[in-house]
Amino acid sequence: MSFDPHEPVFTMHLGGKLVVNCAVPLSTRDDLSLAYTPGVARVCEAIAADESLVHEYTWVKHTVAVVTDGSAVLGLGNIGPRAALPVMEGKGALFKQFANVDAVPICLDTQDPEEIIATVKALAPSFGGINLEDIAAPRCFEIERRLDEALDIPVFHDDQHGTAIVVLAALRNAGALLDRKLERLRVVISGAGAAGVAVTKMLVAGGVEAESIIVVDSRGALHNGRADLTPSKRELAELTNGGGVSGGIADALRGADVLIGVSGGTIDEDALAGMEPGGAIFALANPTPEVHPTIAARYAAVVATGRSDFPNQINNVLAFPGVFRGALDAGATRVTEGMKIAAADAIASVVANELRREAFVPSPLDPRVAPAVAAAVAEAAVRDGVIRS
Amino acid sequence: MSFDPHEPVFTMHLGGKLVVNCAVPLSTRDDLSLAYTPGVARVCEAIAADESLVHEYTWVKHTVAVVTDGSAVLGLGNIGPRAALPVMEGKGALFKQFANVDAVPICLDTQDPEEIIATVKALAPSFGGINLEDIAAPRCFEIERRLDEALDIPVFHDDQHGTAIVVLAALRNAGALLDRKLERLRVVISGAGAAGVAVTKMLVAGGVEAESIIVVDSRGALHNGRADLTPSKRELAELTNGGGVSGGIADALRGADVLIGVSGGTIDEDALAGMEPGGAIFALANPTPEVHPTIAARYAAVVATGRSDFPNQINNVLAFPGVFRGALDAGATRVTEGMKIAAADAIASVVANELRREAFVPSPLDPRVAPAVAAAVAEAAVRDGVIRS
Repeated sequence: MSFDPHEPVFTMHLGGKLVVNCAVPLSTRDDLSLAYTPGVARVCEAIAADESLVHEYTWVKHTVAVVTDGSAVLGLGNIGPRAALPVMEGKGALFKQFANVDAVPICLDTQDPEEIIATVKALAPSFGGINLEDIAAPRCFEIERRLDEALDIPVFHDDQHGTAIVVLAALRNAGALLDRKLERLRVVISGAGAAGVAVTKMLVAGGVEAESIIVVDSRGALHNGRADLTPSKRELAELTNGGGVSGGIADALRGADVLIGVSGGTIDEDALAGMEPGGAIFALANPTPEVHPTIAARYAAVVATGRSDFPNQINNVLAFPGVFRGALDAGATRVTEGMKIAAADAIASVVANELRREAFVPSPLDPRVAPAVAAAVAEAAVRDGVIRS
Repeated sequence: MSFDPHEPVFTMHLGGKLVVNCAVPLSTRDDLSLAYTPGVARVCEAIAADESLVHEYTWVKHTVAVVTDGSAVLGLGNIGPRAALPVMEGKGALFKQFANVDAVPICLDTQDPEEIIATVKALAPSFGGINLEDIAAPRCFEIERRLDEALDIPVFHDDQHGTAIVVLAALRNAGALLDRKLERLRVVISGAGAAGVAVTKMLVAGGVEAESIIVVDSRGALHNGRADLTPSKRELAELTNGGGVSGGIADALRGADVLIGVSGGTIDEDALAGMEPGGAIFALANPTPEVHPTIAARYAAVVATGRSDFPNQINNVLAFPGVFRGALDAGATRVTEGMKIAAADAIASVVANELRREAFVPSPLDPRVAPAVAAAVAEAAVRDGVIRS
């Protein structure tokens, strides 16, 4: 593939997007003897005697590893760790910009789940949290679960929970705009990968009735009669689709109030015709939404996408910086469901008093969001009792 | 152990010594769309098509991982990864201050050589170089060798080679001051750990005759008749001690011109009495030199230590920032012996025209050193043909 190094996007990325800076003075011998030998030995000895002091006297207090294996990067797929690095640096830039979290991209030269788990466990002492990123389903589920169990710092797979938190926030505000209760909504989720699984669970935790949700994969609606399901899809089939609907996306959408697309595919306009009028469509595939917003607006009263050039961008940058800031501030050892729901509620509440159909999701640049999310997440961590003792 | 958080060394270390900053603007939607989606995808695709572009369009161009297992930290020993972190942050601060290299501390929750090797191989795509630090001998030798073979970026165990480079630099200038050729010096090295092994090899590469070196460990001089030697000590015994000297440090020092202490122990004044007058003593143990410099001055014409409060501090901060800066600038795939010798010569040359017995080693704060080392190392990398194609 040829590229033009003079294009703005390449000149901007020259030398990457992150730097590591020194936060203490180092100009004199006295500075050196405090920041380095012999003074630093005092700090080492204190931590050796009480390991919890690592959260006070090192950068782990404000530092997160953004870990990927490069297997599911943006819409580009399995491009490997080196090609994934610009995205991970971008996450780091967003972490810094919105929540003053120091993020280190860690792109792994392995896609074996056991090796990924072993590597992250090994490097965890240097970091205050682990943000898993762009790791393909289904391996992402086990990797997150096992690391969450093994480590005493927050582990958060952003593609799952970041997306799910912002979708729940958007649905809360869409419900308010439409004067509809979440408990009464019939929801179709198109896509049963990492995001689809997490969105489903988050909506249920946030108040949507599980049996009123239908999840659709490339072969149609998930139901208990299907014999071709992976473990994570089987779990969804058991949780959702109380009516046992089978068939394709059009069958699933018949009478639905809400369509949430997290598939990367496209959905025909015909299929939308069966939806209840006055509902919501969130078409989140990037760069091409499952349904173009102009078409979606014919069948739904409120529309959101994942793109910045349409109204109501559902972008997980609304979630992850504040989630980690709050978890780190509170000294949380993990990210609970309660913390995720608190994050969603905080995002929704930022624009709750200024809701318009063209703006029921906060802008990704809204500076109120991350502090609100951080405060809510920290409170929820205390409430859920996951604070480091 | 109790500690007083109001002491200056603790207030300075509060929150650690490093931060990760964003190097590109992120204030507008246009900024976001270049630094993050959708623009970043172009950069990812370019790297996916040509992996060498990762060295142009990501931070690896200027970024080094400082990797430890916490097994041999300063003089504190095996204090583990968390207690080691303040030292690794300190290295990162020095990397930035002296050579504008961005360094990330990676403290590993394992001391198993195979796991260390696997972990570093896995995380290598995010970094332009690997600085191994404070890993105990003998495992450090195999870890460095195997990573050097496996990775196409520079791998450098600072405790070995950083120390060895600065010792060679100091010995060059000591020789010039004393008007003695390195080829004619009889050298005793007290200590056969990581630093002792590397110093021995570096001195031989730099011109000292191998048979004129005697290495001494806690049980006495290394010679071919000893049956208690580890593989790395056996290698030294075969290389050095052409006279087959046995016995303790006093026996080894009889008639020696140079004593280099890298042992951490102490050496009795009696043992020094047998040295040839007019030589050199480098007593590098920290915080307590093997020989106090006042005593050393009775038996040698030039004296150096590892401490900042005595003249002639042999500190590897003179080497590692410039070594990596030069290797990264040149696009070197490894650090050769030639690059290390070039680094030593560059350090020595900075003060070659202003040599005094009280100042034949540059100050660690001398701003001329790192640029001189970087330039010399980059040239040597080209000469040695280890530039990335």
